[in-house]
Amino acid sequence: MSDETTLPYTAITYGVEGRIATVSLNRPEARNGYTLAMAHELEHAFLAADADPDVQVVVFTCAGKDFSVGADLSGGGFDMSMTNAAADWQEPAGRCSKTIFGMNKPVIAALRGVSVGGGMTITLSCDFRLASTDSRFSFPFSRRGIFPEGASVWYLPRLVGVSKAADWMLTGRLFGADEALDAGLVTSVHEPDAVLDAAYALARDIIANTSEVSTAVIKGMLNHLSGLDSPIPVHALDSRLIAGLPSHADTVEGVKSFLEKRAPQFPLTVPDDLPQWLPWLEQKGTP
Amino acid sequence: MSDETTLPYTAITYGVEGRIATVSLNRPEARNGYTLAMAHELEHAFLAADADPDVQVVVFTCAGKDFSVGADLSGGGFDMSMTNAAADWQEPAGRCSKTIFGMNKPVIAALRGVSVGGGMTITLSCDFRLASTDSRFSFPFSRRGIFPEGASVWYLPRLVGVSKAADWMLTGRLFGADEALDAGLVTSVHEPDAVLDAAYALARDIIANTSEVSTAVIKGMLNHLSGLDSPIPVHALDSRLIAGLPSHADTVEGVKSFLEKRAPQFPLTVPDDLPQWLPWLEQKGTP
Amino acid sequence: MSDETTLPYTAITYGVEGRIATVSLNRPEARNGYTLAMAHELEHAFLAADADPDVQVVVFTCAGKDFSVGADLSGGGFDMSMTNAAADWQEPAGRCSKTIFGMNKPVIAALRGVSVGGGMTITLSCDFRLASTDSRFSFPFSRRGIFPEGASVWYLPRLVGVSKAADWMLTGRLFGADEALDAGLVTSVHEPDAVLDAAYALARDIIANTSEVSTAVIKGMLNHLSGLDSPIPVHALDSRLIAGLPSHADTVEGVKSFLEKRAPQFPLTVPDDLPQWLPWLEQKGTP
Repeated sequence: MSDETTLPYTAITYGVEGRIATVSLNRPEARNGYTLAMAHELEHAFLAADADPDVQVVVFTCAGKDFSVGADLSGGGFDMSMTNAAADWQEPAGRCSKTIFGMNKPVIAALRGVSVGGGMTITLSCDFRLASTDSRFSFPFSRRGIFPEGASVWYLPRLVGVSKAADWMLTGRLFGADEALDAGLVTSVHEPDAVLDAAYALARDIIANTSEVSTAVIKGMLNHLSGLDSPIPVHALDSRLIAGLPSHADTVEGVKSFLEKRAPQFPLTVPDDLPQWLPWLEQKGTP
Repeated sequence: MSDETTLPYTAITYGVEGRIATVSLNRPEARNGYTLAMAHELEHAFLAADADPDVQVVVFTCAGKDFSVGADLSGGGFDMSMTNAAADWQEPAGRCSKTIFGMNKPVIAALRGVSVGGGMTITLSCDFRLASTDSRFSFPFSRRGIFPEGASVWYLPRLVGVSKAADWMLTGRLFGADEALDAGLVTSVHEPDAVLDAAYALARDIIANTSEVSTAVIKGMLNHLSGLDSPIPVHALDSRLIAGLPSHADTVEGVKSFLEKRAPQFPLTVPDDLPQWLPWLEQKGTP
Repeated sequence: MSDETTLPYTAITYGVEGRIATVSLNRPEARNGYTLAMAHELEHAFLAADADPDVQVVVFTCAGKDFSVGADLSGGGFDMSMTNAAADWQEPAGRCSKTIFGMNKPVIAALRGVSVGGGMTITLSCDFRLASTDSRFSFPFSRRGIFPEGASVWYLPRLVGVSKAADWMLTGRLFGADEALDAGLVTSVHEPDAVLDAAYALARDIIANTSEVSTAVIKGMLNHLSGLDSPIPVHALDSRLIAGLPSHADTVEGVKSFLEKRAPQFPLTVPDDLPQWLPWLEQKGTP
């Protein structure tokens, strides 16, 4: 890991064990109200996890009983340092969701209690969102006289369709885990004390059974190709990837282990063994 | 309101009360068969509602027990005046759906009985569709030797996915409220005599609790940004909006009322207080 | 039919009866493992069906109890002839899905037993997928160290949303007919011995009740227009189609038969009577 990961975190915690990095919001006294420090540290931690060869999957969770109430208002109002008019300034929720969008490694959000506003939009580019039976969600922008952030108007309709996205965003109403699951906002629902374990179990399943390189390519393809207006360029990119399979060591091991009915031991790693010509890799590291 | 709103309506009715405009198809003797007059008057009425400072939400409904049977065939066939080969001619169902798409204010459709063909495509750009237990829907284009209109091939898959859209459009079959709700075509289902009340209750909730400016921006973002092939431009637009929050009066009131646990009194209005640089505002008024 | 349809098929069977072409994977001894011969013959058969005036609907099914286990590994590993580095080379699963995507006629897949990997991606551009209660699906690319093919990263999220697509593709897990139906991957679920009959019943319903030209136009519009980032060009194309209705013989018959409460006898055929200006028709025949 690079020296930079020694940045002392104040608003989050970060740790790596068993090839799983855990990024955890750590302001439980403020119900994890979102702050500029949090944005800065989340961006840093996700980039560190993506660069760390000891990390294969990232779990994104929280200290305390609520994932996040959204923008921190504990100072009696918006923190003015949260905004800035510089031309290239990136709003704080987007710093997190854009970083996760650009990662090669899968990110699993384990959500419990309240996840509202920016406290939810920061998770919309995760690859999985697991909820708990006590989860409560809302996108209350219209009720606070603010605007959607985190590119949520782009991510949310892709997850749940335009009809549900419009309903949630235009009314700003609160809804629970069942509605979130039914709409596709979350992948599964667990007891509050079991959601983090479920996230780790999913992470371990991915680590034990899948190729890092395949996973990174799939994630990149879904993020960068599924919104095109035609499948024709996707067919072309597929063909270039498939053409390389005979000399791709993970394929050799994947097929061999399958035929031998044993768990695979994929030799290749991310990012070194990614096909460097993939169009979205040029933009990496510039979130 | 402009003088033009004194246009005498013959095929619809229009009224404003309590900041809610009601646009109602009014040819119950023909089960609201769609006509050129209807297209003309709907376009006019929706533009009038969008321009009227006394209107915050629009409800789109019908006289009689059926929303609309689609193109009026009561004359024994298609009304030839419904077509025209002029280069910039806009087909009649699209005149309605495109106008609603371009509005700043949310539109809630309250549907009962039959809503088929053009009688349904005119609602696909509404922000909410409420159905009744006696609702029956179909997209019977292939069964009549005609083609989809109202840009329904664009709106419908965004609401219900491509699989369901293909099923409905290629078979032209009739389906009911339960299937529509399950697929996401409608937001909720009510008793036939209760669907209009439910639409008004939703309208009042939006009026009481949300910022007009926030609502208009969210609607515009969902309509104009969610179909892009990348979230990156959306992150940039979000940042510009969020950067302006400290001096945005609705935000000040939204946060203050929230902290004081009272209903907000948002000071800003649409369209005057919309950020004029929003890319889609340049196209307004030219449906 | 052209001479080319006399190509002797070895890996599939092909037949036409009652305006329905049946394309059937025919390597039951290998559980229909996908081969280069299969790709070649499927491309040929689907193009033949699309060009045959005696065919109105295509059913895509299998001999044996499994639709397809994906890439054939019966030779003890990947068949190296399945890959090729030529610049314009098209990977084998994509040859099938791209050909179906480009067809004017609807394709109904009748799936039973196992449909995994390339054995499923070849069906994602079909207009309908019918499953059986014993259906088992997976997209196991990450578990084999390979990559998604058949442009599945484009087709799948349009059918089931990004959340479900990421879940299935990143874990590679097996799932059944109920989950597939709930997500929208399949249209309906039947007993194993009834799924093919259900596909034929759907095909007969389309043949008896719908216009070939309307169906081809709807399929093309959904494939080529629904992914645009704006409805405005769709409104324009709709208007050009609707403007032609008064002189469109299928419309005359469609409306007349509807008013006379009888089944329609549409006179027009595909591809001869398609509006030749449709933008996607120029690309036909070059899959």
